[in-house]
Amino acid sequence: MDAGLTTRITSLRNDHVKSAIKLRRGRHRRKLGQTLIDGVRELQRAIEAGVEVREVFVYRQLIQSAEALELCRQLENLSADLLEVNRPVFEKIAYGQRTDGLLAVAESREATLAQWQLPDRPLLAVVERLEKPGNLGAILRSADGAGLSALIVADTQTDLFNPNVIRSSLGSVFSLPVCRAPSAEARHWLRDRQVTIYAARVDADRDYTEVDWTLPAAVVLGAEATGLTDTWAGEDVTAIRLPMRGQVDSLNVSCAAAVLFYEALRQRSTNPSPLAAQR
Amino acid sequence: MDAGLTTRITSLRNDHVKSAIKLRRGRHRRKLGQTLIDGVRELQRAIEAGVEVREVFVYRQLIQSAEALELCRQLENLSADLLEVNRPVFEKIAYGQRTDGLLAVAESREATLAQWQLPDRPLLAVVERLEKPGNLGAILRSADGAGLSALIVADTQTDLFNPNVIRSSLGSVFSLPVCRAPSAEARHWLRDRQVTIYAARVDADRDYTEVDWTLPAAVVLGAEATGLTDTWAGEDVTAIRLPMRGQVDSLNVSCAAAVLFYEALRQRSTNPSPLAAQR
Repeated sequence: MDAGLTTRITSLRNDHVKSAIKLRRGRHRRKLGQTLIDGVRELQRAIEAGVEVREVFVYRQLIQSAEALELCRQLENLSADLLEVNRPVFEKIAYGQRTDGLLAVAESREATLAQWQLPDRPLLAVVERLEKPGNLGAILRSADGAGLSALIVADTQTDLFNPNVIRSSLGSVFSLPVCRAPSAEARHWLRDRQVTIYAARVDADRDYTEVDWTLPAAVVLGAEATGLTDTWAGEDVTAIRLPMRGQVDSLNVSCAAAVLFYEALRQRSTNPSPLAAQR
Repeated sequence: MDAGLTTRITSLRNDHVKSAIKLRRGRHRRKLGQTLIDGVRELQRAIEAGVEVREVFVYRQLIQSAEALELCRQLENLSADLLEVNRPVFEKIAYGQRTDGLLAVAESREATLAQWQLPDRPLLAVVERLEKPGNLGAILRSADGAGLSALIVADTQTDLFNPNVIRSSLGSVFSLPVCRAPSAEARHWLRDRQVTIYAARVDADRDYTEVDWTLPAAVVLGAEATGLTDTWAGEDVTAIRLPMRGQVDSLNVSCAAAVLFYEALRQRSTNPSPLAAQR
């Protein structure tokens, strides 16, 4: 690993360090189209997804696992700059507490709806006005697990490449097609593509298990406090609910999303079509 | 509401205030068998579940909803002490940022396995070595929603009545039977009661949809980083997995729990027995 470390940084005033620290701010991330990736698994997933890694801060004392060493070798081959730093510098730039001794600065360009090509029988999700990065990350992780085609993050200021989203999605924010869009635009886009819209509402009449998830479909979930906006009402939207057998009237939004995604996967596995394996 | 407010506290050195602040520490909560309940919904659920509320700090300026006013009247009828406080005092004792102007000191006695009477066809969950209160709360909320009989929190130091658990469970930690136990004791207890054990493992051979959830059953989930301990291996344990169609190899533990609980509910709703409605 030593051979690849071209620079050793010990000053908090180093320009690379100052730029990396600025990337903690969402506004700055969006302006530069860059983000920070912390953690071996997250960085591996980003590289697999073809994300361009610009430079990686390495704090040697924390690099212990075979995976981390292998990742360093891989990064050298990709000609990312490996910058060795000392403890004070690493602690300053490391986001959060858990760390694997590697922190990368990477490109983070957001996709747009117009760019997406859908498979013939897509399964999509829309999450509206979601604010907590941890919930968005968990939803991305479940969407990846259930094999969804893509996720639309509607009507939100939340930065898709917030380091907490990256971490709680285990990096699947890089591998799963995901974009931000206004709700109205998302709805038009789905309708133009003849995608059946299932909107999760606590006051819906139909259980989520009673609808056909083998159709080209999108599941739409809203913020817990306020529910879905009126954009997701109308004759071409089917409201669905999860049965609630106890005292509470709803699940955590990321838990509800996982239940719906996996019911769709269950139905599609039971009733496969030649297109089912497509993504 | 005014009539019921017997005391007005403006000093941070007041004994009630000092005692309440101490309840932020888990050790102190367990020693006294008391906890703090913040929020109208959470407090309502605790009262419905028969939890004894000792005293309630009221910061009048934040009490705005009809539910909060109704709850104040209800608390007076239950002869809980309502203590009116000013802003500095309330901010000092309020846990976290979101608040409804009501903060209660309540009894929080933990159940034990020996106390529990199970219905004839129970559906149970065991979560082992779970450390994050937010995950435990979300799991409790899903368990309540799916109508589980009870939840066992195994091999953990996490306080069941941690204010973050109360909040993220929306108070269902009070309504759903829940207790802490060592894993080995939980496993013996389940075996003695002929409960089928389904252990969620990433390397299992059988999908969670392929097993029979209409049996008396317990789903066992482990910590994400380390998985289940060997306590949950053996011939009488059926390992199950969630299909993972993307890049990640597991879901967030609270999302996985929700998927499993709702598959059990789906199977039980499709194949009801005379006992199915029992809890």
